[in-house]
Amino acid sequence: MSKVSIVKIGGNVTENPEMLRQFLEQFVGLEGQKILVHGGGKRATELANKMGIPITMLEGRRITDAPNLELVVMVYAGWINKNVTAKLQALGGNAIGISGADANAIKATKRPASPVDYGFVGDIEPDGVNTKVFNNWIEQGIVPVVCAITHDGNGQLLNTNADTIAAQLAMALAPQHEVNLMYCFEKDGVLDAEEHAIPELNITTYQELKQQGVIHSGMIPKLDNAFEVLNASVAAVTITSALNFSESNGTRLIHD
Amino acid sequence: MSKVSIVKIGGNVTENPEMLRQFLEQFVGLEGQKILVHGGGKRATELANKMGIPITMLEGRRITDAPNLELVVMVYAGWINKNVTAKLQALGGNAIGISGADANAIKATKRPASPVDYGFVGDIEPDGVNTKVFNNWIEQGIVPVVCAITHDGNGQLLNTNADTIAAQLAMALAPQHEVNLMYCFEKDGVLDAEEHAIPELNITTYQELKQQGVIHSGMIPKLDNAFEVLNASVAAVTITSALNFSESNGTRLIHD
Repeated sequence: MSKVSIVKIGGNVTENPEMLRQFLEQFVGLEGQKILVHGGGKRATELANKMGIPITMLEGRRITDAPNLELVVMVYAGWINKNVTAKLQALGGNAIGISGADANAIKATKRPASPVDYGFVGDIEPDGVNTKVFNNWIEQGIVPVVCAITHDGNGQLLNTNADTIAAQLAMALAPQHEVNLMYCFEKDGVLDAEEHAIPELNITTYQELKQQGVIHSGMIPKLDNAFEVLNASVAAVTITSALNFSESNGTRLIHD
Repeated sequence: MSKVSIVKIGGNVTENPEMLRQFLEQFVGLEGQKILVHGGGKRATELANKMGIPITMLEGRRITDAPNLELVVMVYAGWINKNVTAKLQALGGNAIGISGADANAIKATKRPASPVDYGFVGDIEPDGVNTKVFNNWIEQGIVPVVCAITHDGNGQLLNTNADTIAAQLAMALAPQHEVNLMYCFEKDGVLDAEEHAIPELNITTYQELKQQGVIHSGMIPKLDNAFEVLNASVAAVTITSALNFSESNGTRLIHD
């Protein structure tokens, strides 16, 4: 089984040129094949404000109406995706920037409009990841740079959470590869009450820390995703710093 | 030699959903392999106005400063490219939307800042088209959808005229394929004084019609590009309607 690292980076990394440079230099040095997954919500919010496009949030989630869809496609699949791809090419990584529509790489279904209409948001179908096309890229030494945009196969682009895309890719590729999934962000890992990265975290401890309020807000959906992946025979799942990442840093998720 | 159609469409087509649908339905029906090239200047201008980004024009050419580069990357490589790709996927064409940075498909050099500084504008190098990667896609039956963005190999994205990209692709692929280059737009072809499409046009007649003012403005750089391609062993070069295109419609360029 060949080793494949799937690395997800957040908007704090992609939108900070110096942090992005440091991250990408480490990323190209990773052993084995690589896939990079990114979002970019911060820049999208800035642009929405500039363009006078209202952003509606519901229970902490963004409603993707038509103007917001155009906006996130422009920011995620356009500026961030191509900028990261060009930077990787400069570092010698043969990157190809893609959305789920490209080569039909990731198919999703528009989330039902009830009980809550989130707009053009896509949930990845069980067989939505086109493993054939990803395996093709992996075999050719091409590095897919995947943005948080999918399609429904009927011509509709959809907004899909980047953490979820990384998780679904990891699970889809795990049967054929030794998959190492890393969520990289601006902190050192999942932090304990003293703000230190917890080296290893199992689901029992996670539930306890969540109840105590030590783990909260944005980290909760990230960890829910990540534990789901751990149960799907992915070799390693780590939550770590974008500036100093490897399997031995950050917080590694472990079975109970 | 396999048959490859390279079709360039303008912003009037990509930005009109009904015209785009009609165009794409014909495009997928073209015999042999296909490459689609697009720009999207109109939408970029609208967005620049919305965002309060000043547009500087010099002798009819846009100056691509940093904010305008981000804008055209968002519009061309983001919204238009992914929208067209998703629509092609829905019609059964296995499209992949790319910029020149993706898989290092098209490399360009930033135009020298003197005598006129056009900003982040890229001229394609003589060996700038990565024929290996395009041939790979052609062999796999993948349809590249190429936007008017290139890169310099050092991490810098560049704005490159879509007509020029189509011309350079045609010339680069002509030694290995029977290349049919079509410039599709909202008119029926190159129009004579009575506004009828001229079926065949050679360079002598072109020069005469240009002097008489029958052929003018935006058609001139398009035809200059197109005649250059004709001289480079490309099988056919046609300027035709996006709604009814084939080698037998529109204006076919011929040798003197």
